[in-house]
Amino acid sequence: MATINENYLKLKAGYLFPEIARRVRVFSEENPEAAKNVIRCGIGDVTEPLPQAAIDALKKATDELGDRETFRGYGPEQGYDFLREAIAAAEYSGRGLEISADEIFISDGSKCDTANILDIFGDDNKIAITDPVYPVYVDTNVMAGHTGEADAGGAYAGLVYLPCTPENGFVASPPSEKVDIVYLCFPNNPTGAVATRAQLQEWVDYALKNDAIIFYDAAYGDYISDDETPRSIYEIEGARECAIEFRSFSKNGGFTGVRCAFVVVPKALNGKTKAGEDVPIHPLWLRRSTTKFNGVSYPIQRAAEALYSPEGKAEVQALIAHYMGNAKILRETATELGLKVWGGVHAPYIWIQAPSGFSSWDVFDKMLHEANVVVTPGSGFGKQGEGFFRISAFNSRENVLEVAKRLKEISW
Amino acid sequence: MATINENYLKLKAGYLFPEIARRVRVFSEENPEAAKNVIRCGIGDVTEPLPQAAIDALKKATDELGDRETFRGYGPEQGYDFLREAIAAAEYSGRGLEISADEIFISDGSKCDTANILDIFGDDNKIAITDPVYPVYVDTNVMAGHTGEADAGGAYAGLVYLPCTPENGFVASPPSEKVDIVYLCFPNNPTGAVATRAQLQEWVDYALKNDAIIFYDAAYGDYISDDETPRSIYEIEGARECAIEFRSFSKNGGFTGVRCAFVVVPKALNGKTKAGEDVPIHPLWLRRSTTKFNGVSYPIQRAAEALYSPEGKAEVQALIAHYMGNAKILRETATELGLKVWGGVHAPYIWIQAPSGFSSWDVFDKMLHEANVVVTPGSGFGKQGEGFFRISAFNSRENVLEVAKRLKEISW
Repeated sequence: MATINENYLKLKAGYLFPEIARRVRVFSEENPEAAKNVIRCGIGDVTEPLPQAAIDALKKATDELGDRETFRGYGPEQGYDFLREAIAAAEYSGRGLEISADEIFISDGSKCDTANILDIFGDDNKIAITDPVYPVYVDTNVMAGHTGEADAGGAYAGLVYLPCTPENGFVASPPSEKVDIVYLCFPNNPTGAVATRAQLQEWVDYALKNDAIIFYDAAYGDYISDDETPRSIYEIEGARECAIEFRSFSKNGGFTGVRCAFVVVPKALNGKTKAGEDVPIHPLWLRRSTTKFNGVSYPIQRAAEALYSPEGKAEVQALIAHYMGNAKILRETATELGLKVWGGVHAPYIWIQAPSGFSSWDVFDKMLHEANVVVTPGSGFGKQGEGFFRISAFNSRENVLEVAKRLKEISW
Repeated sequence: MATINENYLKLKAGYLFPEIARRVRVFSEENPEAAKNVIRCGIGDVTEPLPQAAIDALKKATDELGDRETFRGYGPEQGYDFLREAIAAAEYSGRGLEISADEIFISDGSKCDTANILDIFGDDNKIAITDPVYPVYVDTNVMAGHTGEADAGGAYAGLVYLPCTPENGFVASPPSEKVDIVYLCFPNNPTGAVATRAQLQEWVDYALKNDAIIFYDAAYGDYISDDETPRSIYEIEGARECAIEFRSFSKNGGFTGVRCAFVVVPKALNGKTKAGEDVPIHPLWLRRSTTKFNGVSYPIQRAAEALYSPEGKAEVQALIAHYMGNAKILRETATELGLKVWGGVHAPYIWIQAPSGFSSWDVFDKMLHEANVVVTPGSGFGKQGEGFFRISAFNSRENVLEVAKRLKEISW
């Protein structure tokens, strides 16, 4: 008989965003009039048009496919050189960082990459995640059989949870115990926190000392608004020997519906066999990519490349300025209302403490029913997220001003 | 210490196509003049322009992303309804088959799908593959730890190999032993064989009797040139209870560089827990898709939808007619030369027995050096492929005529 992967049965019923969608749907069915005014600040999805540079490149590349002379079929699974080189130049060598084009693997999304990367690692690794955390890191480890069952609060046995709280500014320090793999995300989803150079150096030192590997999710790196905060883990001495970096065009180039991202696997990075021998990670990921993936659509890779043209860069900067302008309005409004607020400075997310006596889902329901605004309940990101909620700055200015107005009208 | 997935160390050095590329590269470096005349009939990659209907739709959808009113961000991970419904109508309900839109999951390729599907199944399943076989089925099972080491001939311990030979017309019957999962691919890559309705019914009956699941790869289904040969496993009574079907736009719509495919997971299909309880497969795959994938690019889905428009259908038919015209020339030429030939009638692949005394790679090297033609050595597809080679009909007519001419000039 064909058996199933029973680890899937350990998963809690709702991945956060489907549950939000379900509650909004129920509300809309019951309140068709109010539903028309709903403003979604829940899922972190961009709202503004795709940069024209990307559109032009995508259409030009599509036309190339219509001509036998310029037609392209299967591309290299790991991505075309033109894009890998553009990324290396703009993101790494151009910033004095030692990452070469062939250490960059083009993919269709950071969600896929952070999930798929587990394929090449052993099932015996001790995994650490921050709490609150992007749920995909947890769920993919559950699916891979790296955990036991969840407790009543939704925490899975076998994972090491690193609490991120107001006390530590939502930046966890390395644990006293030894872990093998740790997920870090800065600027952080959901809290908007960033780690300083010193804090990241502490993590890199920990990883080097323990032969651990850092999965560094920097999908929001372009939202960093000062020069001191590291945008890439490879700004930290020693990171080439202990870190894999995940980057995406979703949140800077508005590619959430277009789908393009990349992962950096330095050639200096080794894992270990159970016997303790070093094995380079780069060829494992290359093998995984060539065997289980067929590369990103050619026109899409051209669109991503165009984000690094002078026009593309200017358009990306304008998009970020727009969303960060929204973040400033939301942050200031919530602060004025006397709420405790984090994030929104180096990230498009505002992380807010729920008024006393309210749970995360209480706030969600109240905001939906009274203000017709969809926020994300912090508890959906983990136990430590309980009592917080996230507002996304991905929206039109008009909507954000309206949300600010409605926030002021709610009485808690 | 972070350990690696040591199953990767069991993989044989070269996935077939990278090894072919390497030999062509070496030849080209040593013979720069001859290299200019090389005609590639190796990898099964399309060569003709993308249908204009797909180009127009892709560009139109791209323009939509440039306008705030029509912009789309994250789509449903399992694909947009417009495409799922177009597929259901054209491929299934329109042909009297009971498959609904919500049983169809849009993806970026059948290679990815046939690899990823293993995620939701148990590691204790006994897996059967045909031999010769598309190497990805084998390698992904090795990676997942479903095999032991490979023997000297490249066969992995733990897999059940079903020999496909001239004697059985390259269509294996169900084995006498009990297996849990079996990969079938018709029209077959690499042999070009097709299974009759009776042969597929035998497989479905076997699966139902043994609670086994069939992974049915029908990527070449549109190349079937008569009305009797089943194009979909769901034409077979009982298949909804035992089969997952993989389909692709790569070979009919010329999407190898565009990337779009789909997998059909019927709601009637169950797997088992170790304790023997039924578990529906559909929600597991949905959970896997929503957690580890972010959907196919919106403009690409529009391009795929356009293949079902009247213009798109006509263009797809013209592409298939073109490649099958090539196949006819290659098949007839090889037959005239006294070679033993299979395939090329319902598939764009010609499968040829190597002349006496030649191994598969001997033929590859001889064809490359003497005729400057790249073929695929049959041994790359498994032990039973030794002594055969594959010629792909994916090429221009001009190149195919030239290949036919050169074939006649080789003396064996």
